[in-house]
Amino acid sequence: MPVLPNLNIVPFISVENMMDLVLSIGVETFLKELSTYIEADFRRWETFDKVPRIASHSREGVIELMPTSDGTLYGFKYVNGHPKNTRSGRQTVTAFGVLSDVDSGYPLLFSEMTILTALRTAATSAVAAKYLAPENADCMAIIGNGAQSEFQAIAFKALVGVRKLRLYDIDPHATERCAHNLQGLGFDIRACASSEEAVEGAHIITTATADKQNATILTDNMVGPGVHINAVGGDCPGKTELHRDILLRSDIFVEYPQQTRIEGEIQQMPADHPVTELWQVIAGLAVGRRSKDQVTLFDSVGFATEDFSALRYVRDQLAATGLYENLDLLADPDEPRDLFGMLLRRQALREQLASR
Amino acid sequence: MPVLPNLNIVPFISVENMMDLVLSIGVETFLKELSTYIEADFRRWETFDKVPRIASHSREGVIELMPTSDGTLYGFKYVNGHPKNTRSGRQTVTAFGVLSDVDSGYPLLFSEMTILTALRTAATSAVAAKYLAPENADCMAIIGNGAQSEFQAIAFKALVGVRKLRLYDIDPHATERCAHNLQGLGFDIRACASSEEAVEGAHIITTATADKQNATILTDNMVGPGVHINAVGGDCPGKTELHRDILLRSDIFVEYPQQTRIEGEIQQMPADHPVTELWQVIAGLAVGRRSKDQVTLFDSVGFATEDFSALRYVRDQLAATGLYENLDLLADPDEPRDLFGMLLRRQALREQLASR
Repeated sequence: MPVLPNLNIVPFISVENMMDLVLSIGVETFLKELSTYIEADFRRWETFDKVPRIASHSREGVIELMPTSDGTLYGFKYVNGHPKNTRSGRQTVTAFGVLSDVDSGYPLLFSEMTILTALRTAATSAVAAKYLAPENADCMAIIGNGAQSEFQAIAFKALVGVRKLRLYDIDPHATERCAHNLQGLGFDIRACASSEEAVEGAHIITTATADKQNATILTDNMVGPGVHINAVGGDCPGKTELHRDILLRSDIFVEYPQQTRIEGEIQQMPADHPVTELWQVIAGLAVGRRSKDQVTLFDSVGFATEDFSALRYVRDQLAATGLYENLDLLADPDEPRDLFGMLLRRQALREQLASR
Repeated sequence: MPVLPNLNIVPFISVENMMDLVLSIGVETFLKELSTYIEADFRRWETFDKVPRIASHSREGVIELMPTSDGTLYGFKYVNGHPKNTRSGRQTVTAFGVLSDVDSGYPLLFSEMTILTALRTAATSAVAAKYLAPENADCMAIIGNGAQSEFQAIAFKALVGVRKLRLYDIDPHATERCAHNLQGLGFDIRACASSEEAVEGAHIITTATADKQNATILTDNMVGPGVHINAVGGDCPGKTELHRDILLRSDIFVEYPQQTRIEGEIQQMPADHPVTELWQVIAGLAVGRRSKDQVTLFDSVGFATEDFSALRYVRDQLAATGLYENLDLLADPDEPRDLFGMLLRRQALREQLASR
């Protein structure tokens, strides 16, 4: 039997490790590199095992598991969504995830994913916009200036060329903070007093609000011809952001229809409302933007393959950066079938130490 | 906003912590106490959200997620099953799990579960046997003397009163090791040369083999009247241990029929083959053993509530034992919506440190 060292150890990327990883690579470069992984995995969409995420709903929110596999690697994310969490100083969304080796079932990586989810969500939005936004789009409205907003702005700068931002939030402090955080990154930023003001002249409208309810962040008259809508905030049953009339006028692009019909903006529509799968556009099997006046809508809810891509990307950075800890996660008896004997040997060691 | 200290920290029970926890409590006491949690949770079965585990099958094995919730706590386990893993010095089954607060979605505990799964599987088997085994059963055959065998033996000693063990494995070294590991624990142990020899005179037959195939560990003529069969090894599609004729003669008890019909011994039977849910027996809503001559079969595949009970139990030991580490798993910005600002502050800290 070959001797495999440290079979018990799984690399762990803590929150601090993740921050240092992002900062050492640079947020914009990180988003750019991450987007190539996301795009590559969308392109080979058909190699993935796909299921709608497994949701456990409660009064205050939802806890979800999002697994997928490409036959070589298996990944899953745990993520919660609890809009009222901010009242107790907690995050609305927290997440962690695991990447495993399919052939052995052994985890290869355990990682914080609260920060990583924010990055992969923004990167995915920007990948979609690369294919769907009008040509030379450089002005984006962001409605909802919470935890996701800065990441969206930077991803759209890096991948789409957005330079002008029009920010609006029902909480002016959120807008102020977002504008402040984005200072010095090369944006022309305007804080707006209303959604109407924010969308005026915008080529791209990003909605990223967090309330768990059917809200109308955008009404039909606010959406001019040729606009690309990046709807990020509606992501569970009973949580939408767009008026139904917008959906009727838009060409709608989704990640995984089976999941989006449950969770996305299109939960407002009949089950057979036509949508195009984003991966088909990326793979060249379907057309994205057809005309200058077309309204395109990326009805983003987040899908397991994006987390898989993100875990793949950060795993590929580990060797060079060393930004991880070793976690004693897996039982590794000298003899694999002798789990109980491992306890007995530990007992002997304890007794030996105690008698010293 | 109340200041909550250490919102980022999640207690982590490593493999070493788990071994020390089990040893400091004592294996037998641990199994006894754990079984009270398992039994209590079976008794309130109807309060749990239940889904069949989410399996990702591959050529070599399976990776599964097993979530459940009682409305207050949410738990899930990641577990793999890869029979050929032992060839590369790895465990057939490894596992880890998380217990979370439903109201906030925040994880409360992250734990190794390779060892814990072995313990909860044995405790569940013994709980079932308390209700199903013949009166004064004190002799158990264990066919398949791998990682699960010693735990089964000790659980049945603690909960059912088993004192005599009849061990058989196709690998005599496995039997030898099992017998050796159980020395000095008060058993009368016989290593047997065949399954036939092992089951002779046994009141309880435990099958715990690991091959991923439809095997026939027990044939009909080996099962005498009044015997209780504890079938642990058949736990995924295409993996069974008992001849079909035994199922036809037995009263079959299962954890969660929707899952057992896919994974258990009863995958060999029509979808409407009658079974009794174990929780109903424990709750007094269904009869367990009715007569001296009845053959009872616990078709165990392992269910999410058992892992939930196990996580609940080990969590209740943390404060007294201190056997855990603190894991920096959750992003905890000073201002919950300001995830990006957390990165900026980290950047400032890094620059400050670098300039010293």
